[in-house]
Amino acid sequence: MENKNIGIIAGYGEFPLIYINELKSAGYSVKVCAIEEEADRALASHTDKIIYISVGQLGKLVNFFRSEGVSEVIMAGKVRKTLMFKKIKPDIKAITLFLSLKDKKDDTILNAICNFLEKEGITVVPQTKYISSVFLPSGVATKRSPNKKEKEDIEFGRNAAMLIAGADIGQTAVVKDKSVMALEAIEGTDETIIRGGKLADGGATVVKVNKPKQDLRFDIPAVGLDTLEAIISVNSACLAFERNTIVLRKEEFIKKADSAGITVYVF
Amino acid sequence: MENKNIGIIAGYGEFPLIYINELKSAGYSVKVCAIEEEADRALASHTDKIIYISVGQLGKLVNFFRSEGVSEVIMAGKVRKTLMFKKIKPDIKAITLFLSLKDKKDDTILNAICNFLEKEGITVVPQTKYISSVFLPSGVATKRSPNKKEKEDIEFGRNAAMLIAGADIGQTAVVKDKSVMALEAIEGTDETIIRGGKLADGGATVVKVNKPKQDLRFDIPAVGLDTLEAIISVNSACLAFERNTIVLRKEEFIKKADSAGITVYVF
Repeated sequence: MENKNIGIIAGYGEFPLIYINELKSAGYSVKVCAIEEEADRALASHTDKIIYISVGQLGKLVNFFRSEGVSEVIMAGKVRKTLMFKKIKPDIKAITLFLSLKDKKDDTILNAICNFLEKEGITVVPQTKYISSVFLPSGVATKRSPNKKEKEDIEFGRNAAMLIAGADIGQTAVVKDKSVMALEAIEGTDETIIRGGKLADGGATVVKVNKPKQDLRFDIPAVGLDTLEAIISVNSACLAFERNTIVLRKEEFIKKADSAGITVYVF
Repeated sequence: MENKNIGIIAGYGEFPLIYINELKSAGYSVKVCAIEEEADRALASHTDKIIYISVGQLGKLVNFFRSEGVSEVIMAGKVRKTLMFKKIKPDIKAITLFLSLKDKKDDTILNAICNFLEKEGITVVPQTKYISSVFLPSGVATKRSPNKKEKEDIEFGRNAAMLIAGADIGQTAVVKDKSVMALEAIEGTDETIIRGGKLADGGATVVKVNKPKQDLRFDIPAVGLDTLEAIISVNSACLAFERNTIVLRKEEFIKKADSAGITVYVF
């Protein structure tokens, strides 16, 4: 196999590192454009080439990938949208793109970025293209199964989460006794879990769904050890998500859920 | 006019007091059943007769109104649903009612309570029956008008808020630049405003809607000086709500909004 160049746009969390290691062990040469405000500093020691850019520095991003001969990139890891409302110092390309948006929904922004890169000769491929071991099969993944109440709450929470996912507002609902404790907007999943879990005063169920038209190039829902820690911190007992959700460090994840007595259910 | 007995079930905030004073000056004899965890202690000095009950003490509530010869009651002021997940010590009547519910949505619970009281000979009448001066007409209510961006955010936020109001999850959305900063679930309007306003880092628009099938006996959305204070605390600039929203201390409310440079828009 030729040593093919693949680019990673690296956001928050462990997913970029997991992806980079997977690609490297498959023989690819990995060039990383890391988002300064989000990316793990440890990435540097795992990559063939890395640069750091700030959110909004699209010109620098394009120049880097071009000069490295990268024509295929993967977006891995979250970029908190709250950054956009605070620190962003967009370059001219980003400003032009930003002004062309019809709204500031996640999908609108990310789609526009992908289209922009495509025009510059850089294709954003599905996050799942080179990695398939990150999903769990449908059903109960843990020793503990959902009880009758939790099953009802999963169904109830799924409907609530689908409402907001359909409108591209958020993807997570926290439910207890068929009452919605918290819905996610821009604050992120962990904050939603903690807020809702506290209001429920224990025993809440966390439900995370895909968007109805999930674009596989970006923003596939992900859960990981952080998600479990948030759940444990507020004495919630049940986590349910769609099959098409990335589970980071799958084995450790299940082990941790089991040792904390948490149900993980995949629908 | 005969000195007719009217009952008030008093929850949180100023609305019960405003209502009681209105009724008294119209010559009614007002008997108040105050929710211990919520009601303003100052109510006592404004009423002909008052008792305090804890959330879930339905038997005590019925006995009180019966012994006072009250057959018509008004629910005034919020009862935080979070209480239900924490402190409730329901009596036998409340337990029976609670077990009969198909879910724990606000409307489901409050409807069941109204039906239960009806069977006991106590009618819950619309909150608006004896008070009509609490609404604002459609349009801009303040010196400052919404600018173009805010108009778009009002429309955007209205759609987002209607999604959750339709599912009886919450009634408030906080929006900036056509992106949803926060959606209300069980935490209440003020917390939603503060969370979303902080994430927006200033300049957010708060939109509050009625439920599509708003029951006038309970839970009519209300705004007041507290709402404005929450908005001011996070440097938001625009508040929009449906015409059918109770505005507490209307004159002071507009005055305060004007002096803080906030737009109030009624749709």
